[in-house]
Amino acid sequence: MARVSRRAGGRAARVAKRSAEVPEINPAEPGQTGGSYRPLSESDILKIYRTALRFLNELGMGDSPDFLTEACLEAGAFQNSLGRLCFSQSFIEDIIAGAAKEITLHGRDQSRSVEIGGNKVHFGTGGAAVQTLDLDTGLYRPSTARDLYDFARLQDKLTNISWFARCCVATDATNNLDLDINTAFALAKGTTKPIATSFFVGEHVQPVVEMFDMILGREGEFSKRPWCFVHISPQISPFRYGADAVEVAKACIDNNMTINCITAAQAGATAPAPPAGFMVTSLAETLASLVMVNVFKRGHPMVFSNWPFVVDLRSGAFCGGGGETALMNAASAQLSNWLGLPSGVASSMSDAKAVDAQMGMEKGITALAAGLAGANMVFESSGMMASILGCSFEAFLLDNEMHSHIYRIVRGIEVNDDTIAYDAITNAVLNEGHFLGNQVTMAAMQRDFVYPTFADREPPITWAERGARDIWEVAKEQVNEILDSYFPLYIPARIEQDIRNKYNILV
Amino acid sequence: MARVSRRAGGRAARVAKRSAEVPEINPAEPGQTGGSYRPLSESDILKIYRTALRFLNELGMGDSPDFLTEACLEAGAFQNSLGRLCFSQSFIEDIIAGAAKEITLHGRDQSRSVEIGGNKVHFGTGGAAVQTLDLDTGLYRPSTARDLYDFARLQDKLTNISWFARCCVATDATNNLDLDINTAFALAKGTTKPIATSFFVGEHVQPVVEMFDMILGREGEFSKRPWCFVHISPQISPFRYGADAVEVAKACIDNNMTINCITAAQAGATAPAPPAGFMVTSLAETLASLVMVNVFKRGHPMVFSNWPFVVDLRSGAFCGGGGETALMNAASAQLSNWLGLPSGVASSMSDAKAVDAQMGMEKGITALAAGLAGANMVFESSGMMASILGCSFEAFLLDNEMHSHIYRIVRGIEVNDDTIAYDAITNAVLNEGHFLGNQVTMAAMQRDFVYPTFADREPPITWAERGARDIWEVAKEQVNEILDSYFPLYIPARIEQDIRNKYNILV
Repeated sequence: MARVSRRAGGRAARVAKRSAEVPEINPAEPGQTGGSYRPLSESDILKIYRTALRFLNELGMGDSPDFLTEACLEAGAFQNSLGRLCFSQSFIEDIIAGAAKEITLHGRDQSRSVEIGGNKVHFGTGGAAVQTLDLDTGLYRPSTARDLYDFARLQDKLTNISWFARCCVATDATNNLDLDINTAFALAKGTTKPIATSFFVGEHVQPVVEMFDMILGREGEFSKRPWCFVHISPQISPFRYGADAVEVAKACIDNNMTINCITAAQAGATAPAPPAGFMVTSLAETLASLVMVNVFKRGHPMVFSNWPFVVDLRSGAFCGGGGETALMNAASAQLSNWLGLPSGVASSMSDAKAVDAQMGMEKGITALAAGLAGANMVFESSGMMASILGCSFEAFLLDNEMHSHIYRIVRGIEVNDDTIAYDAITNAVLNEGHFLGNQVTMAAMQRDFVYPTFADREPPITWAERGARDIWEVAKEQVNEILDSYFPLYIPARIEQDIRNKYNILV
Repeated sequence: MARVSRRAGGRAARVAKRSAEVPEINPAEPGQTGGSYRPLSESDILKIYRTALRFLNELGMGDSPDFLTEACLEAGAFQNSLGRLCFSQSFIEDIIAGAAKEITLHGRDQSRSVEIGGNKVHFGTGGAAVQTLDLDTGLYRPSTARDLYDFARLQDKLTNISWFARCCVATDATNNLDLDINTAFALAKGTTKPIATSFFVGEHVQPVVEMFDMILGREGEFSKRPWCFVHISPQISPFRYGADAVEVAKACIDNNMTINCITAAQAGATAPAPPAGFMVTSLAETLASLVMVNVFKRGHPMVFSNWPFVVDLRSGAFCGGGGETALMNAASAQLSNWLGLPSGVASSMSDAKAVDAQMGMEKGITALAAGLAGANMVFESSGMMASILGCSFEAFLLDNEMHSHIYRIVRGIEVNDDTIAYDAITNAVLNEGHFLGNQVTMAAMQRDFVYPTFADREPPITWAERGARDIWEVAKEQVNEILDSYFPLYIPARIEQDIRNKYNILV
């Protein structure tokens, strides 16, 4: 990947000079191994897990559609006296044992595929913002299909976004089918990374898969190595299945698409407010989604997206930037990883509207907590603002830079004889009296340190002389540069024309 | 403590209404117990510690002043063939065993005293910014004694600053004695929290102690319960003592003042660049400071401030906001806590000049890493900007709010039958079908959730209608309100006049 070009001036020249001396190494690649932060003790985990199993055995799930109920009963589930669909402890344990533990998110460009599992950490997008922070006005306005395409090609240049799930809604689509089609088209036109979308109803899956087959030039080709996965919320918290979403899940499984099963219960609204109670119910519900997927197709790849959502209990409004969000999403990742399931959480969004200090702080703490806890897939991250009502181009760039710091922290410190270099230290102390420019320093320079592109590290006087800009302005300039010049040709013109002839394409 | 008043409008009214319903509880008090994040494994720690001991035994310390050398030799140290002052493993182990493990930072107001030790986490100030971010111009200018007094009374209202070490330098003082006197005076006039200062030379200690005695109304009173501790850097990295600082330390110990012994080596300049090598040398040096304090007075309270400082190796300039700073300071806290010593680190500063997204992100990740690792005292935090060259009033307020989120995360999740509330959940699911407004939710509302004052959680339209302000503007308004109205009378007028008669007071 090309790196975003650096600002002009003295630093750029210095950087270029130094870069010539040392090989280009990324000290903070995506996929670092987390898990050094453990918000829950082993006994906490056991208590949460056992209580979740008790809920599934005693309370069970309401509103299961008939075809799901039948499949579950056949697999060994039972209905309680209230007619709710229940699962015994051993039933759940069998489901977990047979579930997919590692997942490949295929990129259309195979070199961009991502392996998900263990304690490996990746950040990416998610969400369904209905508004975009306008580059010109600095205010929010309804998102369009064009925005989604612009976000897709912008993030295509950013190495710390491991997949691109549709981050905003094309509100200019006049019906749900057009929306689902145009969403998929904008993603596929803008990037060859793994992409993800959602479907209003199960019947929309087939037309989109057909469009993907057109892009690949052969019917049935997409399902062989599906490079689009699907966001589905099969839960209507508390403890009910949503029939429409279950149907979408079934249709996607039939097309071999990986499913990201999201439980997005809200603490104090659709789930208990006390964090412990929340962790129990949300875990139970996500396990009910795991049952659904695995009774349809044993071992089908599913991301275990147990997303703790928090509401501000003063207003009842969702908020995603506070300490509770950081803490509970980290605990969720720890729980899912403990079960050995590919963990998905929703962290590193912000409630801020402006690209300001609130935004930076909220994204910083929530991203770091999720990363250190080892969340495999951190959704709702890059670009997400305004309690995920909004999406920002500038935030995409700044989040990408932030994630380098996060990955650097998650990577940790390698402690061994080489990295300590006892004799070299002794020599430096007794001879030079410092470590500037010596061999060990030069070797560490790119291997161990992240050098930000946008962050200002100049003295106050230099900053003032350059116009006393904040980082929002600096990022905006770079966004405009990329959007004005970067139009990757990921769908050949002839095929794109065929697609436009067949579907109502808005972009 | 009075809370900073909330913004006017609908939210304030709602908050007031809800606040009447639930008791005022702080869900995220200072002093939460960290340690759930462990950047280093047990074997990493052992390797770092053993190698540090080897350095102290083989390489030892240069430039030890005679009176320190004599005290050390008498206590069992030795000189190697190069004449460097060396300490055997068992010597260091004895020093650690006899060192103070818990420290009380006395407040002049005793109810504001702070207990330091274990894995308890506190944030406070530190640093010696030479510039202040001017409230009117939004640009940096030289700091003054008046600024220091203004910072002191501003932070006096902020509950998440556990102590107030001088955050900026009174550059309007024309000599070093005036500087040390005026620094101490500005702190004591502005707050009754524990305060901290520094001294240019040992001879400045006595006049300042005399001024503190004047405030207390009796000679010798201050040293009985000293509410001012001292920042000292006895190390000139790599591996040399600084004679002036050692003399200051001796004078402060003689006056019973707690000493914060800072090793602020810079990775790649005065210490190795590879993080592992850095951790070893910086630990060794801080242990050499521990030796110094404890040979002067066994068990004298010393904060073990092993501060990893990072330079941007492209320019050689110090930078404090990156992932390496977060990681290495967290590792430092883990090491110090593992030794059972009161840990001090330098984290949650920013390299940003503007109060912008860079500032928020950098402070967020560095503060959270230090907090989760269990750093007892996090210095260089509140208000520190511009790679600690600058200090900002607005940042003080925003950092205070951030630290509530940090403390909330550090507090973690209490998992027990009460916080899970199995039966209450079952009832809510089967009856109301939601958790809004039920008893468990109301109980959790203030016990478990932080409600920010400055962070905007409104929808984009509301934000736009209110002027599309960023949080910098919002904070600035509040700063002006406090500085215009809050003048605590912590030094009686008559005593203040006596002090002004005796010393050259600039404020």
